[in-house]
Amino acid sequence: MNAPLPSHAMPEVAIRPVPAAMLAALQARFGERCSTSAAIREQHGRDESPFPVTPPEVVVFCESTDDVVAVVQLADKHAVPVIPFGIGSSLEGHLLAVQGGVSIDVSRMTRVIRVNPEDLTVTVEAGVTREQVNAEIRDTGLFFPIDPGANASIGGMAATRASGTNAVRYGTMRENVLALTVVTAGGDVIRTGTRARKSSAGYDLTRLFVGSEGTLGVITEVTLKLYPLPEAVSAAICHFPTIAQAVQVTIQLTQIGVPIARCELLDVNAVRAVNKQSRLGLRESPMLLMEFHGSAASVKEQAETVQALATEAGGEDFEWASTPEERTRLWTARHKAYFAGMQTNPGCRSVTTDTCVPISRLAEIIEASIADADASGLPYYIVGHVGDGNFHLAYLVKEGDAAQRATAEAASERMVRRAIALEGTCTGEHGIGLHKMGFLVEEAGAGAIAQMRSVKRALDPKNIMNPGKIFVL
Amino acid sequence: MNAPLPSHAMPEVAIRPVPAAMLAALQARFGERCSTSAAIREQHGRDESPFPVTPPEVVVFCESTDDVVAVVQLADKHAVPVIPFGIGSSLEGHLLAVQGGVSIDVSRMTRVIRVNPEDLTVTVEAGVTREQVNAEIRDTGLFFPIDPGANASIGGMAATRASGTNAVRYGTMRENVLALTVVTAGGDVIRTGTRARKSSAGYDLTRLFVGSEGTLGVITEVTLKLYPLPEAVSAAICHFPTIAQAVQVTIQLTQIGVPIARCELLDVNAVRAVNKQSRLGLRESPMLLMEFHGSAASVKEQAETVQALATEAGGEDFEWASTPEERTRLWTARHKAYFAGMQTNPGCRSVTTDTCVPISRLAEIIEASIADADASGLPYYIVGHVGDGNFHLAYLVKEGDAAQRATAEAASERMVRRAIALEGTCTGEHGIGLHKMGFLVEEAGAGAIAQMRSVKRALDPKNIMNPGKIFVL
Repeated sequence: MNAPLPSHAMPEVAIRPVPAAMLAALQARFGERCSTSAAIREQHGRDESPFPVTPPEVVVFCESTDDVVAVVQLADKHAVPVIPFGIGSSLEGHLLAVQGGVSIDVSRMTRVIRVNPEDLTVTVEAGVTREQVNAEIRDTGLFFPIDPGANASIGGMAATRASGTNAVRYGTMRENVLALTVVTAGGDVIRTGTRARKSSAGYDLTRLFVGSEGTLGVITEVTLKLYPLPEAVSAAICHFPTIAQAVQVTIQLTQIGVPIARCELLDVNAVRAVNKQSRLGLRESPMLLMEFHGSAASVKEQAETVQALATEAGGEDFEWASTPEERTRLWTARHKAYFAGMQTNPGCRSVTTDTCVPISRLAEIIEASIADADASGLPYYIVGHVGDGNFHLAYLVKEGDAAQRATAEAASERMVRRAIALEGTCTGEHGIGLHKMGFLVEEAGAGAIAQMRSVKRALDPKNIMNPGKIFVL
Repeated sequence: MNAPLPSHAMPEVAIRPVPAAMLAALQARFGERCSTSAAIREQHGRDESPFPVTPPEVVVFCESTDDVVAVVQLADKHAVPVIPFGIGSSLEGHLLAVQGGVSIDVSRMTRVIRVNPEDLTVTVEAGVTREQVNAEIRDTGLFFPIDPGANASIGGMAATRASGTNAVRYGTMRENVLALTVVTAGGDVIRTGTRARKSSAGYDLTRLFVGSEGTLGVITEVTLKLYPLPEAVSAAICHFPTIAQAVQVTIQLTQIGVPIARCELLDVNAVRAVNKQSRLGLRESPMLLMEFHGSAASVKEQAETVQALATEAGGEDFEWASTPEERTRLWTARHKAYFAGMQTNPGCRSVTTDTCVPISRLAEIIEASIADADASGLPYYIVGHVGDGNFHLAYLVKEGDAAQRATAEAASERMVRRAIALEGTCTGEHGIGLHKMGFLVEEAGAGAIAQMRSVKRALDPKNIMNPGKIFVL
């Protein structure tokens, strides 16, 4: 096996400058939508990862697939990197211009192109956010379930194979993207699928681009599966004396196949943080936050099953939130856990882990990781999409404090090694980016990485598509 | 757009002979498991497609991944084609040795490597059939739902991205393969995923190999998702005066999100054929054959919803089959529809279509295709996984009758054009093989095909992995 890179190293690669001729061509075509201002460049050279700001040379605000084609064709001609940018919510350094180049900002590509409620599909431009999707289809009786917390762009969610709180029931972007429009590295526009629910027509380009983190092409349009709004929804919270008990209930309900829609774990630190930020008054002990979707009878049945499991496992205070307002309050708090956690330690950055393991190994890895985190002396909190075996332990480190950062990264590395040993993955939903390149080698093995690199070289021979992410060529 | 190839042409490409040195090396390693007998070669040069028998030069019966590596390394050295062979149930000519070479028979690779009931996963060798999977896990309370009708090998099902009767509820092989062991074109062994339910770790090699039809590597092991056996199962049949009414009910139940597990359409010809073969005594009119999975209450509720929809749409004789024996009888009959259809016209071959469209367009394409089929004068029957928008219209043509074959192929081409115009696909689950290469170009477009070809060339530079399938390089 190759010796993995340290997970937190910024790879040392040369900047590839934007030639004057290319800059002039961009300015001629895009006018004010082409910016080299320091503020705009800085804003596009950072994300929610703990890496230092690494700005692109130029930012272009694209408003259509044709705009993206124009940028990519110039980039191809001049062998200059391009980096697609949605809303900047990456946690792994995807957006940083480690080799310079042009940031292609798609946040103005916000058209909902077609809603087909009769087929349960919608096609949107890459800059549409998940909240906008749901706002625009509100009248159809349908919804788009994938919910990574942040109000991310659909293009970014596709690019990182995102998932989040509803994945245990509805799957991830892997299962919910039917087709993509992609601008290839050569500047061609391709469509990767149809609106049929399934197909055996050739290589699955859709799933090749989903999760490719901008390294194979720029996603400009996405066709998504939608779902009928459930007839009934109810949410519940349940507190547990120990985190192990909460995890045990999750394992059991997954194994018996309760079709729970959301099953989120918060450790005591996360509960404290959201209490403080959102004034929820939750009891400060480990808890599960759950949601059930279905017919009224089915929701009742699911909830009773889970309540029985929870009670048997030592759960306390099973509390229901049946009104939409109460549910919204709870889920808003959950979604704010990331910022709530950050606010408990002002001036800090988050080193967030993202391991995902087979469900039976979840208690084991969480317990070992907590022991490690407690020993580190750093503040941390845990939230998890535990129904999938996925959880995030976020270390809060002082910005610029190299020693704290190193402590957190070392603990993160140990956690990833544990996950791999338990037949899991270093990233359930955040992607590799800059942060996990070494982990990917360790997880996938040299042979699989060689296949990935061959695909990358074949589809992007000049290495202009978000270079230096996933692996350094 | 490129002019598509005629769908039914055998591509004219040269045979690449197996050199004497390679044959000697295979015989030295495999002894009697390496065969050049005419009978064995013929058996490996045909499938259920209407193409003429096209035997490989050599057949090697592999018993392990190491065996496959040995064959592929020799094939790589001598630039000779290899064709993975499971049980031979392809409908699209995948197994025919159009460029000669070695058939790698994996049907003796039947080990169930690991059952992990606590994680709802199983890992099997490629030659294990879907019925064997379910037999081996019977005691765990779990099952593997994907059911393409034929008792296909899991390796073959992964290679063609198969689905079948349960896909409307449980998804296809695309959604249900967690990881693969693959022998690459260079003879390396890679593992494409972990046992975690989701991952964002690099390119999705699993889904690149799923559906690649043996053209990128040889699948030797497959890790599958399993599901808890439903607490309650019931099946029902419902007859309709017209096929349009049956399809309308399907569209409605899909749109409102009834979690039906199976929803199969049989036209009157298919009903007649299964009646004749299995002595079922079904009324000879279009019918839906449905199955409901869930808790007792949920199954009852689903069934009531569907019964109400069916009655409103003119359905008659909603009949229940609640005992396992009755259900088995009905589903066995459904699975035999293919052979039953063939037996209504002894000495015939089947030209089977496989279009899949967005659900709202299903009635439209079925009605147009029936009109076309009626006008052709050929015997035909229709079965369909209609909950997915997928159906098969099988033309029965006399073996060797070129005029009948041409009539059927022309009708098939018109149907595929209809499907593509309706934003659907030429193949929902059978794959491209030899039969649909022209259709793939028309469906995916030149740009997407160029990306697929680049991937193929990158991962199989000598074009030894099942060459001449999906596209001719």
